Amino acid sequence: MTTGNLFIISAPSGTGKSLLLQLLLKNNILKFNIKLSISYTTRMKRIGEINGKDYYFISKKKFKKMIINNEFLEYAKVFGNYYGTSKKNIDNFLKNNIDVFLNIDWQGAMQVRKKKTQVCSIFILPPSINELHRRLYIRGKDHIDIINQRMLQSKKEIYHFHEYDYLIINNHIHDAIFDLKNIIYAEHLKTKIQFNIYNKLIKKLLKE
Amino acid sequence: MTTGNLFIISAPSGTGKSLLLQLLLKNNILKFNIKLSISYTTRMKRIGEINGKDYYFISKKKFKKMIINNEFLEYAKVFGNYYGTSKKNIDNFLKNNIDVFLNIDWQGAMQVRKKKTQVCSIFILPPSINELHRRLYIRGKDHIDIINQRMLQSKKEIYHFHEYDYLIINNHIHDAIFDLKNIIYAEHLKTKIQFNIYNKLIKKLLKE
Repeated sequence: MTTGNLFIISAPSGTGKSLLLQLLLKNNILKFNIKLSISYTTRMKRIGEINGKDYYFISKKKFKKMIINNEFLEYAKVFGNYYGTSKKNIDNFLKNNIDVFLNIDWQGAMQVRKKKTQVCSIFILPPSINELHRRLYIRGKDHIDIINQRMLQSKKEIYHFHEYDYLIINNHIHDAIFDLKNIIYAEHLKTKIQFNIYNKLIKKLLKE
Repeated sequence: MTTGNLFIISAPSGTGKSLLLQLLLKNNILKFNIKLSISYTTRMKRIGEINGKDYYFISKKKFKKMIINNEFLEYAKVFGNYYGTSKKNIDNFLKNNIDVFLNIDWQGAMQVRKKKTQVCSIFILPPSINELHRRLYIRGKDHIDIINQRMLQSKKEIYHFHEYDYLIINNHIHDAIFDLKNIIYAEHLKTKIQFNIYNKLIKKLLKE
């Protein structure tokens, strides 16, 4: 009897997904408790990143052990590194009526949909191809080869937009935030969630 | 390639559904074009009712002919009278990118779901059993037998809340309107609808 919802958010690189999530969690105007799932990864920690905040940084050996123990809701190998979502962590959030966002790609989304029947998936697209290029280049953190690799990855990701429940076009970040909040709010009005809140009332109405 | 959505709204008598719909259509703050479907009925016109506005009032003979010609998206016999929704009327609205609300009961909803794959159904409940009683009595339009019959009908209707996508508790009418608008807005963010709006952008992003 949880009132927490599981959300998947996917987008090609350079769509502004990270900023969107950051703003959603920072300016929590919604009355719901929302958390971003922290992934496990085997990739090297970048400067400024904090273990347990940005990722749980673990060894390949430990990651593979977790795979064998079936501890992941989803995992993937991207650019030679593993990334995964802990089943236990997600279930703990949901049990405590917390909405959880999974910031994962289409392959992860597919794995989650197979394991969780109640999941709301959202895809973000850039407003134009030029804007996508621009956003990928201004990040400036990465080498040109990485950028090109990301561009290719982006296109592969976009092919899967139709597998998602919702589609947001990130033209203006504040409009996109508005859309995202709207989706979260609507998910809380779904009959299964509302029943968990109002089950006493409903039972009374049916008994009378 | 429509951007119009089909909505079903059901509620037990005395839940305030009619006022809710009235306010939704009157104060159209949403940017979408929303219409309420006008049903065909064989029941007598009440004082103040207008043909083509409140209902299309037709004879039983004509109604039965429409049934035989498969012209109804749904129809039902309630308290000895027929009520039905014209397929053609609904399809015309949707073709013109207009959202249509069907104000029907659970039996009608069931028929529509079988014929239309893309339909969003919303159930409204009163905040308490006392409030339901109060609302049924203050209407004052009807004889006590009719009220009791409606009360029984209400309970039968409530049994079917779980068949609906969304559940709104009509405690305060303005909160219920807010919830309803939120659902309508979110439906327009569904991938299938968004694709119909942004298909050029998506095709461009995929081609690049």
